[in-house]
Amino acid sequence: MQDVRIQIEEDVTLKDPVLVEGLPGIGSVGKLAADYLKDALSATRFATIHSKYFPPQVYVDENGIIRLVSNDLYYRKATKAGQRDLVILVGDYQGISPEGQYELTDQVLLLCSKLGVREVYTLAGFAQGHLVESPRVLGAATSPQRVELMKKYGVIFSRNDPGGGLIGASGLFLGLGKLYGMESVCLMGETSGYFADPRSAEAVLRVLAKALNLDVDLSTLEAKAKEIERIAARFRESDTKPSPEAQPKEDLGYIG
Amino acid sequence: MQDVRIQIEEDVTLKDPVLVEGLPGIGSVGKLAADYLKDALSATRFATIHSKYFPPQVYVDENGIIRLVSNDLYYRKATKAGQRDLVILVGDYQGISPEGQYELTDQVLLLCSKLGVREVYTLAGFAQGHLVESPRVLGAATSPQRVELMKKYGVIFSRNDPGGGLIGASGLFLGLGKLYGMESVCLMGETSGYFADPRSAEAVLRVLAKALNLDVDLSTLEAKAKEIERIAARFRESDTKPSPEAQPKEDLGYIG
Amino acid sequence: MQDVRIQIEEDVTLKDPVLVEGLPGIGSVGKLAADYLKDALSATRFATIHSKYFPPQVYVDENGIIRLVSNDLYYRKATKAGQRDLVILVGDYQGISPEGQYELTDQVLLLCSKLGVREVYTLAGFAQGHLVESPRVLGAATSPQRVELMKKYGVIFSRNDPGGGLIGASGLFLGLGKLYGMESVCLMGETSGYFADPRSAEAVLRVLAKALNLDVDLSTLEAKAKEIERIAARFRESDTKPSPEAQPKEDLGYIG
Amino acid sequence: MQDVRIQIEEDVTLKDPVLVEGLPGIGSVGKLAADYLKDALSATRFATIHSKYFPPQVYVDENGIIRLVSNDLYYRKATKAGQRDLVILVGDYQGISPEGQYELTDQVLLLCSKLGVREVYTLAGFAQGHLVESPRVLGAATSPQRVELMKKYGVIFSRNDPGGGLIGASGLFLGLGKLYGMESVCLMGETSGYFADPRSAEAVLRVLAKALNLDVDLSTLEAKAKEIERIAARFRESDTKPSPEAQPKEDLGYIG
Repeated sequence: MQDVRIQIEEDVTLKDPVLVEGLPGIGSVGKLAADYLKDALSATRFATIHSKYFPPQVYVDENGIIRLVSNDLYYRKATKAGQRDLVILVGDYQGISPEGQYELTDQVLLLCSKLGVREVYTLAGFAQGHLVESPRVLGAATSPQRVELMKKYGVIFSRNDPGGGLIGASGLFLGLGKLYGMESVCLMGETSGYFADPRSAEAVLRVLAKALNLDVDLSTLEAKAKEIERIAARFRESDTKPSPEAQPKEDLGYIG
Repeated sequence: MQDVRIQIEEDVTLKDPVLVEGLPGIGSVGKLAADYLKDALSATRFATIHSKYFPPQVYVDENGIIRLVSNDLYYRKATKAGQRDLVILVGDYQGISPEGQYELTDQVLLLCSKLGVREVYTLAGFAQGHLVESPRVLGAATSPQRVELMKKYGVIFSRNDPGGGLIGASGLFLGLGKLYGMESVCLMGETSGYFADPRSAEAVLRVLAKALNLDVDLSTLEAKAKEIERIAARFRESDTKPSPEAQPKEDLGYIG
Repeated sequence: MQDVRIQIEEDVTLKDPVLVEGLPGIGSVGKLAADYLKDALSATRFATIHSKYFPPQVYVDENGIIRLVSNDLYYRKATKAGQRDLVILVGDYQGISPEGQYELTDQVLLLCSKLGVREVYTLAGFAQGHLVESPRVLGAATSPQRVELMKKYGVIFSRNDPGGGLIGASGLFLGLGKLYGMESVCLMGETSGYFADPRSAEAVLRVLAKALNLDVDLSTLEAKAKEIERIAARFRESDTKPSPEAQPKEDLGYIG
Repeated sequence: MQDVRIQIEEDVTLKDPVLVEGLPGIGSVGKLAADYLKDALSATRFATIHSKYFPPQVYVDENGIIRLVSNDLYYRKATKAGQRDLVILVGDYQGISPEGQYELTDQVLLLCSKLGVREVYTLAGFAQGHLVESPRVLGAATSPQRVELMKKYGVIFSRNDPGGGLIGASGLFLGLGKLYGMESVCLMGETSGYFADPRSAEAVLRVLAKALNLDVDLSTLEAKAKEIERIAARFRESDTKPSPEAQPKEDLGYIG
């Protein structure tokens, strides 16, 4: 089989679209944000990506029906002046090897390039190692112009964070995207790193909504955040640092 | 050499055949069941699969003769009305890397697709982490119709099991099979996960025999199950949870 | 670069040659034996194999000159009636991944097949986990005829050893060789597994010399064996099981 | 994408150029030396190498601008009689798998071969496991002539070091370079292995400058070395062997 198999389900024509990427990673921030966005905007799936760089795994839903792990591309056309057409990349996994990461990112960029994408936003978490009450959104970008623009939306560009750079899809889409002539921004919500963190995802989406002039009702995400915070509070009371496994994954409706 | 090398030993023409897969995995349930089935039905080998995705290993039989590890395809034509032609996949190993899992599964599906296979049953174990007296058979499938059909044969479709999905060949044949237009069912026998478990394999085969209208004498498997249970009972008496290594592998006639 | 790069240094024409393989492995038995054999027979190197499946490593000799790790093929023509032309495979490493093992073995077999090789002897060690005073030579083969033939030379074909089969080049040359129509024998010298074991290599070479009607002076190997035994005796006295690292590798003249 | 993607930014014509390689490794000696050299000589970048054999990572500079990890080729033409044109290879990483090491080295050598390179110097560290006050420069080479030449510049060719050979790019450029008909020398600065070691890099550059008749002002490197030594002294006083993580990486201006 092909290393990366992209199944186009609908031929779409988009006008100067923006790619928004949010795959699993630190605090599930990027995944929570991108999944929420595609649902809130009622985006339409137009391509499914299977790959030998994903785990050999199927998910089973509550009715017993299986689904092969995948990444998925959605689109949503602008609905008013000042908006842009969107392509949204969501998925179950990032590539599970360095080579897989490069190959998957490159193939998605190639497809997006053909669709006219010249601008990318990647959504991610930034692990602080301690609970963060009011997560800030840190940034990285491909050009000083993008940096200045993002600062207007409250994004922090810190001299020290992220110190060692970005590892994984959120960084790679920026780095490889440059080779396709794309300008990009990575938005990183601060998070403890211990929980799936809808509060951080919310912070990231607030910035993205401003940057892309989107109307996104964040109340459901807010509710999820409050639920997590209640659970976290209980852990704090019992004076135990929760293990990553203890996070109430199932309740977050990952697979929306 | 080719990544996956399929040596066709007999050109077979089959009528709307069903693929049954049973490779090594949890409790050896799938392997025990599929090996038993192909022997009980006197199925005929028609293809041998070698691959660099298997370990670089040969087995040596009691006469000192070696055999390179492989997967093998058998067929067995219907012998009475109401039966279907069968293709049975057995083997020494699943692919030992995620890429190998995908590539091997895809190549077997491609070949089976050419043989006319449009329906797949995969056989597997489901680890409960404790001894199971009367193993139930859990299911997963590619469509609601299959789910309903399997429920009639006593298969359990549970909201919670398997929670994280299926990893390995038994799930992948369902997931990749869908891309070939195949409808599939995974039958998972409950098992402790500590022993090779012929009792669980027996439960799986009882369901499969009903679904495919097969006459399979399960008495030898029953005898093996009793032997294992005697050994397990001794472990329980000595109050020691047996290690996986302690299982009496050699006595199970793996390489039938 | 090619995955496996075979540099032919001399075009040789051989008459019904036999391949003898001895690469690093348990107790270095196969490597010690094959290296000794090619030196004792003054065999001539005709091909060097480099590969990305070897470690990215060069050796530095005592004069400061480097040599990229490799496998090497030597030949030695029959010098009297009753002998056969020989191809001898020696080297620094086996492939360091399962895929590399398959690919390297296959490419060597392909080349040997073109040279007319239809018979293979692989030399290896068999780890007993305890010191072995008089190592026996265990065998595995591709046919009952080979088994019977080897029994005449004192090779043991045991019902239980090797229980789990053979892993690595010595087994793979038999298994993949069959796909090239070659008949093969694996000769395994018993060894503790703790030391590089020239005594075991000597036992293996004695069998091989009989089988191939070779005159090989084993006195230098015998001297090495005695040296190792003196060192082992000291370890025994101090009642310490020597670690594999403690073996006096450097003194064995690996890179003859 | 290609496994190794070399982006030529300037077509250069060089006269009998020498390749100098210095990538990350033991004590960062090679990287420190090659980075310093290309800055001191105001060398010009003419090619950037991206690869799926590097980590999927971008670096973020103090302004928030990202850069995909890469290796980079610089050139610097001779400025006076007795000098040679230079190609300098620097980078963020060596290939992160054995296969990647081979492939990356081979592709760089192929390009350099086309540029006329027939001579290579690789720069590396040699870990002594203890602090080294006055690091010597150890050598390895492809020919006795090179060994003799290097001895004149004070390079030590020791019977015992490096005992097990060289692993990684610095060795591989010599080994694979021979297959391209290139003569090469590896210069290894002694280092503790606990710190990034500009003192050792300085020692290596002194030898290289003599060998290639280069005027390189080493005062900045000398200043860095003094700074490291002050830090090391403090560690020694507190009687604690510093962990590799404790090294003041950030202060060394790696990404010059």
